[in-house]
This record gives sequence, structure tokens and C-alpha cells, in this order.
Amino acid sequence: MKLNQRGLLIVISGPSGVGKGTVRKALFEEQGHDFVYSISMTTRKPRVGEVDGIDYYFVSREEFEKRIKDDALLEYAEFVGHYYGTPKDKVERYLSEGKEVVLEIEVEGALQVREAMPDAVFLFIGPPSRRALYTRLLSRGSEDSSTLKQRMDKAEREFLLAHKYDYIIINDDVRNAADRIIAIIRAEHAKTERSIHGYLDMLEAEEKNGK
Amino acid sequence: MKLNQRGLLIVISGPSGVGKGTVRKALFEEQGHDFVYSISMTTRKPRVGEVDGIDYYFVSREEFEKRIKDDALLEYAEFVGHYYGTPKDKVERYLSEGKEVVLEIEVEGALQVREAMPDAVFLFIGPPSRRALYTRLLSRGSEDSSTLKQRMDKAEREFLLAHKYDYIIINDDVRNAADRIIAIIRAEHAKTERSIHGYLDMLEAEEKNGK
Repeated sequence: MKLNQRGLLIVISGPSGVGKGTVRKALFEEQGHDFVYSISMTTRKPRVGEVDGIDYYFVSREEFEKRIKDDALLEYAEFVGHYYGTPKDKVERYLSEGKEVVLEIEVEGALQVREAMPDAVFLFIGPPSRRALYTRLLSRGSEDSSTLKQRMDKAEREFLLAHKYDYIIINDDVRNAADRIIAIIRAEHAKTERSIHGYLDMLEAEEKNGK
Repeated sequence: MKLNQRGLLIVISGPSGVGKGTVRKALFEEQGHDFVYSISMTTRKPRVGEVDGIDYYFVSREEFEKRIKDDALLEYAEFVGHYYGTPKDKVERYLSEGKEVVLEIEVEGALQVREAMPDAVFLFIGPPSRRALYTRLLSRGSEDSSTLKQRMDKAEREFLLAHKYDYIIINDDVRNAADRIIAIIRAEHAKTERSIHGYLDMLEAEEKNGK
């Protein structure tokens, strides 16, 4: 019996290169869960093949800045001259429909979401070792050495922010990591602070029906 | 990868007649977990077939009262002239060996354990409805009507103590309830407060090995 009808906001985060995207994809392959992926909003131009409302919501700089002013974003950041952010309204609607909303974001953004949505579930995806992460960043191969150095320095700082999260999950095996997230979601729904209202409603409904 | 090497103390509790024992048995049938059941200590005489150290630790009243004085019990209570309680030392040893220690106790005892072991995991097993619980208490059939009335009154008070626990699990289906407890155990091990030390040790060990 599911006492908590509201969905959870699941924030998947961790150092660059740790495999957040792979873990998220594995999670969506799990059966019996109503997951929805929160689509980001950006001011950059669509690349060939990208579709508005599927890959991103593509908006103008003016519209994005209006949303910042209206506090209509859960988090946002600027990278190389473009804004990226998470629209609040869609997330809120999905949660009230009982869907589990998954955000896959950088550490900086995750800490902003913590402020806006303290009851979200914050997952730090960690590498099995520093070396594993560096090997992974190297193997991408598409970046020049100064970009790589920057990414490694960033990862080095992000390693140490694990304590800001609710849970730490080591991505030593993607299937394992996804299974662990499923366990966390089940546990979070059963948490007293989320389930006590459903429990008391259940007892009360019965009284009204004349037990 | 398991970052937290210490076992968890799992307290299974809830109203009399809710099926705590059945849920606990189903839990012990789950594969891949190192569960150990905490054996209670009592001053009542062994019944035929009961074995010291398996069903209970049978001790004298003097010894039990010495343990109370020495603060050597996680919880205790007196029922119809006999003491029942949980020895602290065994629980502590199992936990440090990485075993998950399961306590199946009454609501009163659970609230005492909360004081002594705040980092234990407190599970409230609830019935799918009041009626289900009453039907169950009735079907036991071994009790006279005044004892039954007492038990129902006690259950009625205990229903409302769910908010004192970490998680609420409805025992609508025993297998389901046990699965949910397994999910909670996996999630609790991944909690940052339990896993951060293992995570930092992992990074540090690597540095020492010259990454």
C-alpha cells in the first residue's frame, strides 16, 4: 500500500565524468516506476536534430532573465555565454501527479535546488576511485589538455562536496547504482514525514465508513 | 561498493496483532543479507522445549535487576511479574561485525531503544485497517473477552504512535512489507551520515597508494 501519493524530486548529481547520465538512463529502464525526466531550459541555439520541448526548452535571453526575476527556476547557471536552468512549474505539476521527477545536474545547480526544494532527495554519484574518474575524463578524448585540466580541477573540488547530499552512491556498476536508487526511492516514500498523512487519512476514512 | 561497514539496528515494532513476527520471518528469508535476531532476556521460567540462548536468555531476577542498574539493557519492561529486555553487549558486538541486528518489540520498548540508540532504524508496522487488526486479534481466539478488550485498547493507543518512527510500513502483504524493509536497509546504508567516512577513507587510501 502506497501511503504517499506525491512524487519525489530525485536530484542526481556528482563530479563531471562520473557517469550521471548513464546511471539516469539505467534508472529509467527499471520497471514499475513512473519516472519523468525534467527537461532543462536554455538560451543557446538548438543544434541540428535537437527538438524544442524534448532535448531542451529553447528560449530567448529576455525570457530566461524574466524567469530568473520571477523566481520561476529551481536552479540555473551560465556556461560560455548561455543560460541553462530548470523550470519550476513543470516539476511541481509532475510531483503533484505522483510522478518521480529526475533531475540530472551539476553540483553547483544541485546545491541551489536544495535551497528551493528542501524535501527533494539528493544523490551524490561518486566514482569508485579518483583514478577511475580521470581515466574516464581522458578517454572522452574530445577535449584539449587545458579543458581537461579544468575539468579535473573541478572534479577534485566536487569530490569533497559529497557531505552536502542525502545519499552517496558509488558508480562501480551502473545496474547496481540504479538498483540502489530504486531502493532509496521506495524507502523515501515510506519515511514517516512523507507517509504519516496518508496513514492518518486511511484510519479516518475507515471511521467515516462506520468501520 | 558498500561504504558503510557497520551493521544497522533495525527495530520492528507496531500495534499488537499487526504481524510483526510474520514480517520478521519473511525478512530473514530474503537472500544476500546478514541478519541476526536479537534474543531477549527474561526472568520467566523456560517453557517445555525452550532453550536458553535460542528462545531467550533465562536469568534470575537478581541478575536482571543488576543489568538494569548497570544500564546494560537497550530496553526492558515487566509483564505479569516477569522482566523482558534486550541485552546491549550482544547487539553492539553484532553491529561492529557488520551484521544487521533485528529487534522485534512492542511500542513501549521501541521508544526506549530510541533513547539509547538514536541511530537505529525504527519501523512502524501498521495494519491495512483497524478492522483488519481487530479481525486478526479475534481470530487468535485464545483469549477471554476482557484480555481481548485490553489488547484492542492498547492497539488503539499504539496506532497513533506511528509518527514516533522513521518509517511506516503497511502490512497488507507480508512479502511486500519485507521487500520494503530490504529497500530501507539498502537506502540507510547509502545515507551520507553513514557512508561519508567510508567514502573519504576510500579517497585517502588511494592517495597513500600513490594513486
